[in-house]
Amino acid sequence: MKKSLIALAALAATSAAFAQSSVTLFGALDAMVSRYSQNGVHKTMMSTSGNTSSALGVRGVEDLGGGMYAGFWLEAAILNDAGLGNGTGGAVVFQRRSYLSLAGPFGQLRLGRDYTPSFWNHTVFDPFGTLGAGSGANVSQGGGTNGAAGDNPTTAARTNNGLSYLWGMGPNASSHIGTGVYAQITYAFAENLSTAAATNRYLGARVGYAAGPFNVAGAVSRSNSAAGPVFKYKNWNLGGSYDFGMAKVMAKIGVNDSDLAGTKHTYWSLGGTIPVGAGYIPLSWGHIKVNNAAGWKANQLALGYVHNLSKRTAAYATYSHISNKNGGNFTFLGGNGGGNPGFAGTAAAAGSGTGIDVGIKHSF
Amino acid sequence: MKKSLIALAALAATSAAFAQSSVTLFGALDAMVSRYSQNGVHKTMMSTSGNTSSALGVRGVEDLGGGMYAGFWLEAAILNDAGLGNGTGGAVVFQRRSYLSLAGPFGQLRLGRDYTPSFWNHTVFDPFGTLGAGSGANVSQGGGTNGAAGDNPTTAARTNNGLSYLWGMGPNASSHIGTGVYAQITYAFAENLSTAAATNRYLGARVGYAAGPFNVAGAVSRSNSAAGPVFKYKNWNLGGSYDFGMAKVMAKIGVNDSDLAGTKHTYWSLGGTIPVGAGYIPLSWGHIKVNNAAGWKANQLALGYVHNLSKRTAAYATYSHISNKNGGNFTFLGGNGGGNPGFAGTAAAAGSGTGIDVGIKHSF
Amino acid sequence: MKKSLIALAALAATSAAFAQSSVTLFGALDAMVSRYSQNGVHKTMMSTSGNTSSALGVRGVEDLGGGMYAGFWLEAAILNDAGLGNGTGGAVVFQRRSYLSLAGPFGQLRLGRDYTPSFWNHTVFDPFGTLGAGSGANVSQGGGTNGAAGDNPTTAARTNNGLSYLWGMGPNASSHIGTGVYAQITYAFAENLSTAAATNRYLGARVGYAAGPFNVAGAVSRSNSAAGPVFKYKNWNLGGSYDFGMAKVMAKIGVNDSDLAGTKHTYWSLGGTIPVGAGYIPLSWGHIKVNNAAGWKANQLALGYVHNLSKRTAAYATYSHISNKNGGNFTFLGGNGGGNPGFAGTAAAAGSGTGIDVGIKHSF
Repeated sequence: MKKSLIALAALAATSAAFAQSSVTLFGALDAMVSRYSQNGVHKTMMSTSGNTSSALGVRGVEDLGGGMYAGFWLEAAILNDAGLGNGTGGAVVFQRRSYLSLAGPFGQLRLGRDYTPSFWNHTVFDPFGTLGAGSGANVSQGGGTNGAAGDNPTTAARTNNGLSYLWGMGPNASSHIGTGVYAQITYAFAENLSTAAATNRYLGARVGYAAGPFNVAGAVSRSNSAAGPVFKYKNWNLGGSYDFGMAKVMAKIGVNDSDLAGTKHTYWSLGGTIPVGAGYIPLSWGHIKVNNAAGWKANQLALGYVHNLSKRTAAYATYSHISNKNGGNFTFLGGNGGGNPGFAGTAAAAGSGTGIDVGIKHSF
Repeated sequence: MKKSLIALAALAATSAAFAQSSVTLFGALDAMVSRYSQNGVHKTMMSTSGNTSSALGVRGVEDLGGGMYAGFWLEAAILNDAGLGNGTGGAVVFQRRSYLSLAGPFGQLRLGRDYTPSFWNHTVFDPFGTLGAGSGANVSQGGGTNGAAGDNPTTAARTNNGLSYLWGMGPNASSHIGTGVYAQITYAFAENLSTAAATNRYLGARVGYAAGPFNVAGAVSRSNSAAGPVFKYKNWNLGGSYDFGMAKVMAKIGVNDSDLAGTKHTYWSLGGTIPVGAGYIPLSWGHIKVNNAAGWKANQLALGYVHNLSKRTAAYATYSHISNKNGGNFTFLGGNGGGNPGFAGTAAAAGSGTGIDVGIKHSF
Repeated sequence: MKKSLIALAALAATSAAFAQSSVTLFGALDAMVSRYSQNGVHKTMMSTSGNTSSALGVRGVEDLGGGMYAGFWLEAAILNDAGLGNGTGGAVVFQRRSYLSLAGPFGQLRLGRDYTPSFWNHTVFDPFGTLGAGSGANVSQGGGTNGAAGDNPTTAARTNNGLSYLWGMGPNASSHIGTGVYAQITYAFAENLSTAAATNRYLGARVGYAAGPFNVAGAVSRSNSAAGPVFKYKNWNLGGSYDFGMAKVMAKIGVNDSDLAGTKHTYWSLGGTIPVGAGYIPLSWGHIKVNNAAGWKANQLALGYVHNLSKRTAAYATYSHISNKNGGNFTFLGGNGGGNPGFAGTAAAAGSGTGIDVGIKHSF
């Protein structure tokens, strides 16, 4: 209770805000030159979001008194190599986040579009998160285009029309505030007429516990498909990290199970970050297997270096290697909502592959 | 070398003065859970703009000296349940308002996209305006999709390419400033080649008078259809309000007449707002009839409560009941530019119906 | 030299910047009433960007210490007569500029979407730039829709996926800072799979020299077409200006050569600006010829007046006359990314024509 209030107050106090209001304009640009090679095909390109999701947003918090706060968060993905967003036809839209919130001693209530509870462990407990050549999503997240999707693409990372309750979390909700239990429960309306199928309904929950260097969280979700109520996506995932000081170690495991496709994707990863001078080394080892007839499997090894030029600006380089087995078609998904598609959906998505990113990120 | 550094340093050092400037980033998010039932069909959803139009905008005013001011207003509708705008494919666009203005002792001149003179009485003299379950537009505004439209949908609320003259009005132009006469005249260019039909041309005017608790205004307009000059939309409307202190009473009446469809829509409403503690109760009774062969009619009764949590934040609930007669197809249009469509265009748009909104609005 | 530094400092001082951060929200709205007549057809309309490109943007610079700076620039075109951007379906997108930069004693490195080196002389050495009825682009820039394009429309003004090196230029890069040599070299990735054609690859360079009232620059570029590597666009251009105080004289010349269409466009222009009281008179004479069988030719005479109401606001009027010879189809392209298309692509694009703009521009 108190911890969420303190965090909100801290955010409000330290944000770059307009003098006459509590509105904060924020964002990040991340640009990189990438080269991906797989199955005898390669591609060199300028791409985005290898380290940090390029974005532009507006957010605010208002103190209502009596321990109550109102807030909002509008955030658009930016594909800054071309000046586009990730909406239809490249439109700039606030699909990264778009919510209104009320917070108080009871916790936090959110209405709108936000990350799902079942997404967070993918990014919190993976040193590369879901970004760049080393993205854990290449060999885990069902929302990508790798093979028969084991997760509902529409709700894998975010949902529209969500009603969420949060405990022990700040406005960003990526993780906990302070010590103790934290949680997020989200229900997303299907928004069908009563005479039509209830598509893309989502229900998920995540519960975690953090104390000092230790953090662990588990999540579970169910989602209707875009075709309606009969076919159900189910998933669960679990992640944990321990910060030893000289290195932070993290691991995650999970299953995406699609009654629609009849396939189950089981994945795990082990990784960590090692502080080095003004920067750090992220590294991870990930594995996925699909219970289809062929028995698809893939491994990914990723290694990088991030050099901080300031608190807001960093240069980075990432090397990643994916090896498919039994005909698996896992590949480099590329970052930022599909705007920079890597090899997803191409003839390259087979065999073994190597991805390299070299880039700069700048937050504001 | 040095020269580029000097310039960059100059930029960096002095770019710290939003307070001095007249640019304002503003907006509102309004999210609600709604349930609409009509003709045996119902729908439950997260929706937006039940009390206040969700929006994000930038505006500014510059004092030119000599009693002259330059200003601009860019405002985008935000469908915050999904993070979209109301442009093509959900793009965020400044279609709510996009104008440049020059003001002085002579009045105010505006160029661009803005509300039409014939729109304002719909929102100023209706306690629910054109928003939410109780929207007066459900049983009045021709721009909706109810039956054969009596008004040009393209110019019912706003026009592109408008040249407006205003007197006695501030930048928002929703109503008057001070005591006396106020007015808006708008001409919108058709923008056709001289060899083609002049589509969507608009000419309208609104004149009002306000003094103390009393306010009255009338408006009239003509608009070409999207098909060209032959078919003309004509409308007029009149509204008034009186603030008794313990309650503000308001009424409006008008006609939307389409030579295109051959139908005339006649509507009136009576309503008011009653202050109660930290909030107020809006209520309204509206009626519409169409001069088609069947003689469509509909009534709407709407009642709500708005509880102010601060000057910027409020919680609200609205109940609304529509009863159609003689086969009328009036229904809950939903808010914010069609992004949350209520029942418009569905099989539910017949018989009697009930709409309930429960939501939160936050302005910034 | 000093004036550009003063201008940058003035810009920074008056820019709307956040108090605690280096983020600047900036832009301009320019609205005009235009009448274009050509080949017996005319069109009257509200349009935008007759004097200044209507835009909305966010930019920032961070001092990294050690003479190093990080910066970014996101800028969207705004078609303010309709509240749209110039993306697909009118979406607001940051296609005017979207780059991340690192600057230091070595110069400046940029990644993303930006103006091409081969574009700048079109706007720097033409009194009307590429805007409005008098736009030099009407009779020069291959990126328009005039006849068989002599330049790659995709890279004529800007490129996606660009990697640029700049010397002696500030964040805007429209021209030089201080005295001496300035330069921009840009390479834009084709982003094809190695098994597919390399489309829209671009390589260009611009080198200039400025000292006191004197400024000269030349540029050259090569670009693949959208269809791949076989067909190549080649162009070069050269411009210069001298400020006599009582008038600034400027000239440009160039060739756009398309192996795709088999045509070569050769153009030159002579013009200047004459300070008058609180404003100035821009005037220009332009000529273009195409080496097709008919031997298309066109001349353009343009004359205007810009009256400054403040440093940020001006009223303006422009008169322009185009005369085609030998069947040439040059016409008024209209401003701001094709959103206000003038006569481009219509039956009017032949014979002689007259364009008149009367408008207001306001920067913030």
